[in-house]
Amino acid sequence: MLDTNHEPPEQAPRQPPQAAADSAAAGPVCPVPLSDYPQVLLAHGGGGKLMDQLIHRVFMPAFRNPTLDACHDGARLAIGGARLALTTDSYVVRPLFFPGSDIGALAVNGTVNDLAMCGARPLYLTAAFILEEGLPMETLVRVVESMRRAAAAAGVQIVTGDTKVVDQGKGDGVYINTAGVGLLEFDQEIGPARVEPGDVILVNGDLGRHGIAIMAVREGLAFETEIQSDCAPLHSPVLALLEAGIQVHCLRDLTRGGLASALVEIAETAGRSIQIDQAAIPVADEVQGACELLGLDPLYVANEGRFVAFVAPADAERALALLRRYAPSLPACAIGRVIAPSEPLVTIRSIIGTWRIVDRLSGEQLPRIC
Amino acid sequence: MLDTNHEPPEQAPRQPPQAAADSAAAGPVCPVPLSDYPQVLLAHGGGGKLMDQLIHRVFMPAFRNPTLDACHDGARLAIGGARLALTTDSYVVRPLFFPGSDIGALAVNGTVNDLAMCGARPLYLTAAFILEEGLPMETLVRVVESMRRAAAAAGVQIVTGDTKVVDQGKGDGVYINTAGVGLLEFDQEIGPARVEPGDVILVNGDLGRHGIAIMAVREGLAFETEIQSDCAPLHSPVLALLEAGIQVHCLRDLTRGGLASALVEIAETAGRSIQIDQAAIPVADEVQGACELLGLDPLYVANEGRFVAFVAPADAERALALLRRYAPSLPACAIGRVIAPSEPLVTIRSIIGTWRIVDRLSGEQLPRIC
Repeated sequence: MLDTNHEPPEQAPRQPPQAAADSAAAGPVCPVPLSDYPQVLLAHGGGGKLMDQLIHRVFMPAFRNPTLDACHDGARLAIGGARLALTTDSYVVRPLFFPGSDIGALAVNGTVNDLAMCGARPLYLTAAFILEEGLPMETLVRVVESMRRAAAAAGVQIVTGDTKVVDQGKGDGVYINTAGVGLLEFDQEIGPARVEPGDVILVNGDLGRHGIAIMAVREGLAFETEIQSDCAPLHSPVLALLEAGIQVHCLRDLTRGGLASALVEIAETAGRSIQIDQAAIPVADEVQGACELLGLDPLYVANEGRFVAFVAPADAERALALLRRYAPSLPACAIGRVIAPSEPLVTIRSIIGTWRIVDRLSGEQLPRIC
Repeated sequence: MLDTNHEPPEQAPRQPPQAAADSAAAGPVCPVPLSDYPQVLLAHGGGGKLMDQLIHRVFMPAFRNPTLDACHDGARLAIGGARLALTTDSYVVRPLFFPGSDIGALAVNGTVNDLAMCGARPLYLTAAFILEEGLPMETLVRVVESMRRAAAAAGVQIVTGDTKVVDQGKGDGVYINTAGVGLLEFDQEIGPARVEPGDVILVNGDLGRHGIAIMAVREGLAFETEIQSDCAPLHSPVLALLEAGIQVHCLRDLTRGGLASALVEIAETAGRSIQIDQAAIPVADEVQGACELLGLDPLYVANEGRFVAFVAPADAERALALLRRYAPSLPACAIGRVIAPSEPLVTIRSIIGTWRIVDRLSGEQLPRIC
């Protein structure tokens, strides 16, 4: 059933010609001084190379502490005898409403999912609004109602908040920040540091729907079948894995930068190598078609209801069966595995059997996707 | 020493002519339908009447839960055996740097203070940035460095974060959200529901510095003595009160809307009446002078390092002595007390002995003050 149990290629190409070319085009991997970018670019928020540099050269050195250094979607904390997860995300998606979801549901589910990726049961959210003067009150009411529904569906309470209003032309309707607190009910440490050679990489459904839904409405494209965002809370499948005693080593939701960026980040943080199999990665036909039309690679397209789970090989079949109970449009799959590293590296076997290196996005594919 | 132990006026005027006129000018106190405001105004973020309406008619009904209904600066939660406080605030202050502080220190201290106002020891912060494309990287580095220093000074760790970038003209340099988690080490419930007749109202220092510092730089005003923001962390004086066993019934920092708005909000939530004494309210001469020049009432001007404490009368002297150890420019004072209510109402005795009602701001005094 797991089609990734094949042997690695006899000579896993350390730097095949194509990858070398990609890598050169993307700029040197060695530190690019921040002074190369005297101003913030949209790409600094895109989930790719520049955002990674901003985080590792500006934020991390300043705020340095062991929790932050763990490089996870959220912080795992022990406070007053309780083991908690704490996360934050701001949402600046444009437009505010798009097929299948809106900024309100996204602001709830996105933070619920960051908690879930820590292995936590999401409990409480904060909600902070930055409103642009002139925003129709009716729009705000719609967004708030969507947050209410999403919070009820995810079983979380919004317990405190804040409202700021900025002058017209200094915002874009509404930006929302949600921070989340969840309870770590299980003893398992989950994070890149736990990733081991042999781990099987599962994805809970098909990729690319959120990004394509946004892109289609933004560009005024109409497809035969409307592609809807996959925005959804992910704590139920994650907690189901943990409750079943599955050895879950790492979890990551596939938002900005998509599957590719998530895997590269995990490989680098873990100091492990990852091999994935393009033929095993589920992408719906209509999403694949839209990606070809728009010149996008579905590996890099954002999702808001998809995650990867790195699980111990002995548990992979059982984990897949569990994930398939929480059915997105296409079922959960095993897409790859972790191998003994020479250097942290993600490689993909194409449909015709060739291997190439998967790198981070070097520019900005689709600004303000979440 | 407490100059507020005088008897209430024989006939505390329920609606003296001046107050009636103020109240009429400010619009009816009864619910104004939100449809009177089909669009968000700057005043919806100003800490006054419109913000109160937005909170109570849009956010609270949608997100309804007992924690939120407590109407406090933050949420008090019991999670996994721990008693915690959770708060959030976004910071959109303009300009980013101003005399005495900047948006970075404000984003740390503001959230530290919201935790302190819950009676919690601040422990962990999240930091989420919304950056405008084109922001000089050097500006961001300065802001982050200021956050680092403020976090170190307040003894809190920034443990997780988020970065979004919005297109030029859709932001204003940098907006920051910080959420905070603190530990409730003391059993005392603190909040408007605890306010009792007889409670003495203390303020920890002189009022109006933050608002005037911002206004001066924004309007290009130069005063003989530069007025600096009072931005500072407040958890040390608060925890000192609690550690000393002072019966602290309610705490509130005096940010947007100033002292007046804070007291009106507490009076309304508590269902109590409050009398304050103008002669007892500390305002530095240079701040008073600037207020007169600018046509501002220092009671409504924002502070970022000042708070009121409602304490049991027997503890008031001792509390004052403690607060005076943490010396802002002018010392802590008792400024008023809680009386048996007929309706929730804040009244002030002017310097010449007349009484008038203190109401919320009805418009916007100074947008984007924090």
